[in-house]
Amino acid sequence: MDLRSIRNPEFLKKISIRECNELAKDIRSFLIENVSKTGGHLSSNLGVVELTIAIHKVFDSPKDKIIFDVGHQSYVHKILTGRADRFATLRQFDGLSGFNKRSESEHDVWEAGHSSTSLSAALGMAVVRDLDKQDYHIVPLIGDGSIINGMAFEALNHIGELGKNVIIVFNDNNMSISKNVGAMSSAFARLRASKPYNSLKQDVKDVLRTNVVGNTVLKGMTAFRDTLKSHIVDSSIFGELGIEYLGPVDGHSIKELIRALETAKKHQGPIVIHVITQKGKGYPHSESDRDGSWHGVNQFDPDTGILNNNLPPSHATWSSIYSETLIRLAKQNKTITAITPAMIGGSKLEKFFQLFKERSFDTGIAEEHAVTFAAAMAMQGYRPFLSMYSTFLQRGYDQINHDICRMDLPVVIGIDRAGLVGEDGDTHHGVFDIGILRPLPNLIIASAKDANEAQDMLFTAFSQQHPFAIRFPRGSAAYQAKDTLELIPVGQWEAMNKNHESKAVIISYGPDVDRLVQKVTVNAMSIVIVNARFIKPLDEKMINEIVGWKLPVFVYQPDVEIGGLSSAILEFCAKHHLTMDLTSVGLKDEYVTHGAVGVLRKKYGIDINSLFEQVLKVTGE
Amino acid sequence: MDLRSIRNPEFLKKISIRECNELAKDIRSFLIENVSKTGGHLSSNLGVVELTIAIHKVFDSPKDKIIFDVGHQSYVHKILTGRADRFATLRQFDGLSGFNKRSESEHDVWEAGHSSTSLSAALGMAVVRDLDKQDYHIVPLIGDGSIINGMAFEALNHIGELGKNVIIVFNDNNMSISKNVGAMSSAFARLRASKPYNSLKQDVKDVLRTNVVGNTVLKGMTAFRDTLKSHIVDSSIFGELGIEYLGPVDGHSIKELIRALETAKKHQGPIVIHVITQKGKGYPHSESDRDGSWHGVNQFDPDTGILNNNLPPSHATWSSIYSETLIRLAKQNKTITAITPAMIGGSKLEKFFQLFKERSFDTGIAEEHAVTFAAAMAMQGYRPFLSMYSTFLQRGYDQINHDICRMDLPVVIGIDRAGLVGEDGDTHHGVFDIGILRPLPNLIIASAKDANEAQDMLFTAFSQQHPFAIRFPRGSAAYQAKDTLELIPVGQWEAMNKNHESKAVIISYGPDVDRLVQKVTVNAMSIVIVNARFIKPLDEKMINEIVGWKLPVFVYQPDVEIGGLSSAILEFCAKHHLTMDLTSVGLKDEYVTHGAVGVLRKKYGIDINSLFEQVLKVTGE
Repeated sequence: MDLRSIRNPEFLKKISIRECNELAKDIRSFLIENVSKTGGHLSSNLGVVELTIAIHKVFDSPKDKIIFDVGHQSYVHKILTGRADRFATLRQFDGLSGFNKRSESEHDVWEAGHSSTSLSAALGMAVVRDLDKQDYHIVPLIGDGSIINGMAFEALNHIGELGKNVIIVFNDNNMSISKNVGAMSSAFARLRASKPYNSLKQDVKDVLRTNVVGNTVLKGMTAFRDTLKSHIVDSSIFGELGIEYLGPVDGHSIKELIRALETAKKHQGPIVIHVITQKGKGYPHSESDRDGSWHGVNQFDPDTGILNNNLPPSHATWSSIYSETLIRLAKQNKTITAITPAMIGGSKLEKFFQLFKERSFDTGIAEEHAVTFAAAMAMQGYRPFLSMYSTFLQRGYDQINHDICRMDLPVVIGIDRAGLVGEDGDTHHGVFDIGILRPLPNLIIASAKDANEAQDMLFTAFSQQHPFAIRFPRGSAAYQAKDTLELIPVGQWEAMNKNHESKAVIISYGPDVDRLVQKVTVNAMSIVIVNARFIKPLDEKMINEIVGWKLPVFVYQPDVEIGGLSSAILEFCAKHHLTMDLTSVGLKDEYVTHGAVGVLRKKYGIDINSLFEQVLKVTGE
Repeated sequence: MDLRSIRNPEFLKKISIRECNELAKDIRSFLIENVSKTGGHLSSNLGVVELTIAIHKVFDSPKDKIIFDVGHQSYVHKILTGRADRFATLRQFDGLSGFNKRSESEHDVWEAGHSSTSLSAALGMAVVRDLDKQDYHIVPLIGDGSIINGMAFEALNHIGELGKNVIIVFNDNNMSISKNVGAMSSAFARLRASKPYNSLKQDVKDVLRTNVVGNTVLKGMTAFRDTLKSHIVDSSIFGELGIEYLGPVDGHSIKELIRALETAKKHQGPIVIHVITQKGKGYPHSESDRDGSWHGVNQFDPDTGILNNNLPPSHATWSSIYSETLIRLAKQNKTITAITPAMIGGSKLEKFFQLFKERSFDTGIAEEHAVTFAAAMAMQGYRPFLSMYSTFLQRGYDQINHDICRMDLPVVIGIDRAGLVGEDGDTHHGVFDIGILRPLPNLIIASAKDANEAQDMLFTAFSQQHPFAIRFPRGSAAYQAKDTLELIPVGQWEAMNKNHESKAVIISYGPDVDRLVQKVTVNAMSIVIVNARFIKPLDEKMINEIVGWKLPVFVYQPDVEIGGLSSAILEFCAKHHLTMDLTSVGLKDEYVTHGAVGVLRKKYGIDINSLFEQVLKVTGE
């Protein structure tokens, strides 16, 4: 059918299972074709085509609330709720978001980007529904990667206690982003291997009766026979939490999905439907993916499955530059370990994990645990490299504070995807880390202007006996392994292009410094560029010098400016009663939407051209 | 015995069970006597007297690593490791900490204060031990309140996967701080009700054999008999996670505890020992406590059990002032709900919970879930009041950012225990919240100078359609319910004591403003006091006025000054190229130890006298 003609999911009520299967086929072709042009999350969406159709066929959205955990698997939902015609704009500025957005559709009743919030959201909604004496279904859809996050467990524990009607669709593909980890994945595997739900031939009545009996039995569990019964009813961790379990269900059989969902609809109390799906289903390249390459993709050739990596020649991604250097250091220092919360691929740690299997730890989506786990290793004399995306590091903020910084433990934190990340949008921009980390005692915060400095910076980090965070962005840089790694004095900045004709100073950090230097050099501008490679501690000597120059100072910080580098400099100046004519060029007090980084920088007034417009106004060049 | 003569726990190896029981009696008397004088955590320590003795008898600390979750239940450990002679100084400045401290003893191998970090710590240590091919035991001790926190679940999931030797002592008293909550507590109750470990008469060999068989059986679970077996072996949520379960064990029988711990010592792989203890054991007043009054106590009369509440006449605690006002508002507005992560008592919400049972939610120690649960209620049109201690709010930082602020949802966050909290020390001071919350778009951050303003502020908060955080400290204020609640214009400060002779300005927030006004009034000082009752948004009009006065400005902020109110003012001035001679009097870049708030303020140079010394130097008064 013409997917662009869909206005809302009501048509699904009238079509047959056979037509639904036809629709699934059309949606798969549409997804492959479109995502090959725009990039986006492919595999997770291909895996939930039938599931999303079945949910929309059984439930009445938006009256019934369908809550997508994370939200990057909501493309099919977008198509079924009338947004197919906008897919050419997917993830672009002013275009369709890659996640749920309330501003896009009344069918998007919750927004996320970080994992494992859907169950808490569902329970909050269920409480309000019941207090308001309303009557509708709440259907969170959560994957096996997300459900093992601690927050989801907290929500399950509360859901089981309150006993509210919530239909949890547990989408189990045995992969989160890449291979799944943790003891729970074995527990899920046991469930998957158990007798399929449909072969039990239970009808609704039976399930309910079993349920009631099961509950009664549970209370008076005294004899073997009873124990046995309770085991069948309570055959999972969900049962332990007081949540009914129904499954496993074949996630690619619309017929079986509908039957299971209809059963759940009539159930009183919380219920989990365990749906087995295949990530990447229906496209050979993504079906055979085991390392997560097809989770989030750039553009690709739909016929050959060749992914466009967009990497300029002799460039390497920032993630690779750090992980290659980490490997180099780990070869010398046997105490270096690497820890990542489910980001082996994203942070390019595959090679480290292969070379140093015993020293490599993927905690799954469990940032809180990952941070404290790293702290304990450091406590015992090891040197963990804790790799986290800036935006997900927010999940471990308390542990970074309470465990790492308070105990002054030498964990090296690699803050990947710092700054604007582009197409993933407001939930993913790594623009808050400086503000939340700068107030933490003992912590050193650094970034590097180019690949050479990056290598030296990581070397420097491991030479320190304090927590040391290095932030680096998405994207790449010209890279060659240095012959010799050199220590950078902690807290030392560098001033470039200074001469007696200098008319202004730009202080910045990270790879933008390199761009700024090129800009002033090529254009022969009399502007000093300061590489504030340490955001903490500041180079107090150099700030004093800069004050002495009596030039207008611009702090170029493409992150949230509240609490940022400019604030650090202002705090220092106030403390010593120094006067500096400082202008901050950074993100104002608002969330930043999705779009290409270049476009976003322009729209939010933090591109280099906007900076120079302001600078040149002052210098008069 | 004379507890003060204990140097280390080695003597325990040589004494009999009968002598251990005598010792337990002596320790209980010692704890009651000492804590009645110093205040501190009583019930949790009375509950683990036998358990701590048994652990130190069976294991060799500090070679074996005993890790106390939270750490407020480590008093017995402190006595057994040679610190009884310092108990008169407990929780005082320069005295014994109320938690584990590496600086106090080589037997304190981990530090905490926030819950649920012990399992991650244990695994981190176990990994290093095995990589280093060392041989010692790692024994985290965690309570049933802490184990349901998401972070603990993340750690269990990882522990089960890695299969390291870790002996988890699960101290189950069916209370965390007060009554336990969540579906897991029912699961624990089922375990408690199961056949006690000791009555199974299993010896070490049996346990191991059962274990191996159990594991094999698990893999090939095909018949009812097998299912049954696996149920016995795997009789808990721990089994699902691949962690051996041993219990329940009577936590007040040293003999049984020793037997269980010895068994665990010989076990290969992770094991949980489920120990049943009675919180407050051995002291009638704390034994019968059901609402947590005896969890953390002030001084008390050991004979009558009368607790000293230290409350001046006609005063109420800040927590009460807000909760009373909340009740008043909730009577009018049926959409107001209250949510607390295990702090009903601490935040004085008992009465709200009694009056509005259906609108009251205790999530247990589950800050992440609590925040998003609140967000979802607000999304559906309700008006949740989310009550959190400042220090524990750090655990929900990402959810406040990603869920509440990003979606601009009108949750009112009551930030309790903001500022220095005193005796609980570095893990508990609520001094980071301004720094981490100020960079968040959409969020209003306020505090009130006195009880009247507090009442109006809460009324104002519920009049807003944005997230609204009100921070208030430990302690109390003169309080009377206002006749009429009035709206405070958001972002409006107030200047007091301004006249044409004014020589300086002090800007502050919260109850200190009241103290400052009294100080300048009583002493007839020509100093303007500005009540910055909104930390965000700033009163830009007033800042412009203050700039116009051309007076020295002092920002008095008894919190971490990096990223604080002074930074906000400096950022504003820089943005508009305004010049202000600003001095910050706030906490420098270091963690603050334990001690009375008054003592700490003096030691760290942020008491009002230190402030005025600096001010008067400038004004010359």
